[in-house]
Amino acid sequence: MNNPLKPRLWVVKIGGHVLDQSELQENVLNSLAACRDQVMLIHGGGNLASSLAEKLNIPQTMVEGRRITNDETLDIALMVYAGLLNKKMVAALQQRNRNAIGLTGADGNSILAEKRPIKDIDYGWVGDVRPEGVNPSFLLSLLAKGLLPVFSAITHDGKGHLLNTNADTLAQLLAVSLSPYREVNLVYLFEKKGVLADVADENSLIPEIRCGQIEEWIGKGILTEGMIPKIRNAAAAVDAGVHSVQIGHAGSLSEILQQKDHACTLIRK
Amino acid sequence: MNNPLKPRLWVVKIGGHVLDQSELQENVLNSLAACRDQVMLIHGGGNLASSLAEKLNIPQTMVEGRRITNDETLDIALMVYAGLLNKKMVAALQQRNRNAIGLTGADGNSILAEKRPIKDIDYGWVGDVRPEGVNPSFLLSLLAKGLLPVFSAITHDGKGHLLNTNADTLAQLLAVSLSPYREVNLVYLFEKKGVLADVADENSLIPEIRCGQIEEWIGKGILTEGMIPKIRNAAAAVDAGVHSVQIGHAGSLSEILQQKDHACTLIRK
Repeated sequence: MNNPLKPRLWVVKIGGHVLDQSELQENVLNSLAACRDQVMLIHGGGNLASSLAEKLNIPQTMVEGRRITNDETLDIALMVYAGLLNKKMVAALQQRNRNAIGLTGADGNSILAEKRPIKDIDYGWVGDVRPEGVNPSFLLSLLAKGLLPVFSAITHDGKGHLLNTNADTLAQLLAVSLSPYREVNLVYLFEKKGVLADVADENSLIPEIRCGQIEEWIGKGILTEGMIPKIRNAAAAVDAGVHSVQIGHAGSLSEILQQKDHACTLIRK
Repeated sequence: MNNPLKPRLWVVKIGGHVLDQSELQENVLNSLAACRDQVMLIHGGGNLASSLAEKLNIPQTMVEGRRITNDETLDIALMVYAGLLNKKMVAALQQRNRNAIGLTGADGNSILAEKRPIKDIDYGWVGDVRPEGVNPSFLLSLLAKGLLPVFSAITHDGKGHLLNTNADTLAQLLAVSLSPYREVNLVYLFEKKGVLADVADENSLIPEIRCGQIEEWIGKGILTEGMIPKIRNAAAAVDAGVHSVQIGHAGSLSEILQQKDHACTLIRK
């Protein structure tokens, strides 16, 4: 049930693999355009950034699965995420009669971040975000005008630097920051049906996880390795006021937005 | 004198050569940030797009001084104009405590254009704009919030295509479209002091041109070849309701915004 005092808001995050498959991306755009609730989209990068770096002979350094963002790598992120992908998605939403606006955290000073401090590793132009950095009034004013904000995972530090930011974290932060004003449903889309009891079996979808069950299920081995951080983050978002977190297949977005049962994994209080 | 019923708005266009010189660009950003009136910035591309095309081995075809925009060239425009340059300028304005927002015509459906029809030449993904395509209420709402819109010269056709658009024309169009609501001063910045009576002599600045004088001055040879289309366009903008058009050096923006005499060439009724 939607709370009449708090309009529903969907905060939808799509990962790189969705962006690399035009059919999946089309499905996401169609589903977003058809949704009558307020919606916000956050997107990551995909293979395009890596392939552009390769063409330009800019070596990419990964440390523990994270990309080191030097000057050249930041420029690539700005070009591919904030330019190419973001504007193409905005134009595709306009084509579907959904008025979208493409943003980074620098635009409208919407998300202020902090350059990650150098400890053992210098990640370069990477931003860490905190709830105080989000400007909800600006985002709410866009939503109130019927706009669908499309965020690339780029923020800024207020000192003139743009920062590469983790798209999952950014989506969670936006969801939490808007929860006082909206009934926020946070949706992570990827290429699996959701959280699977057996990663090899697409039919082993866990349709619902209550926050109170998580640690017990981890102990029992029901929730497995790769999913544990994602689910703990989801539970933290719910604890911080997000109405629900859903993890599902990009091809099921339409069912998720229509709140059909078993379309994905739902995590709630 | 500013009309109290119509707040003043500066529509400032900077060309590619300004973007290629970091000192000039800094000066423009400082001047914009210090200006207390409402401001809108329109920027073109600069050498970066051509040099990226070269690095990626994407040949650029020019016909009569105009770039043919095929799929790859459009992608480069999106990456360099809408991504890299646009977002860096927005972040630099934020650093100067000026709340800016980077836009293309697709964002907020702010500028709808039409793909240039193929006659003798197929220009590819190039957009022609008309006043009906501009969405003034969206732009006015951003200005009313204290935001400084920064436009890259990219528009869209509403059918899902982004279009490369002439930045001079776009600036003029925005100035004309906002004239019913604002006292609009349109400023074109380049690397000359303004319109010179003798192109070789920087001291031969023509400080003011009245629209009624233009054809006479052209006949007398006072206004010379290269400047004629720019001045005729400026006169057309004034005829269509723009308060003034100014053509001047990017290094003089601060003086222009403070309306100091002889800082540039002023074209008015």
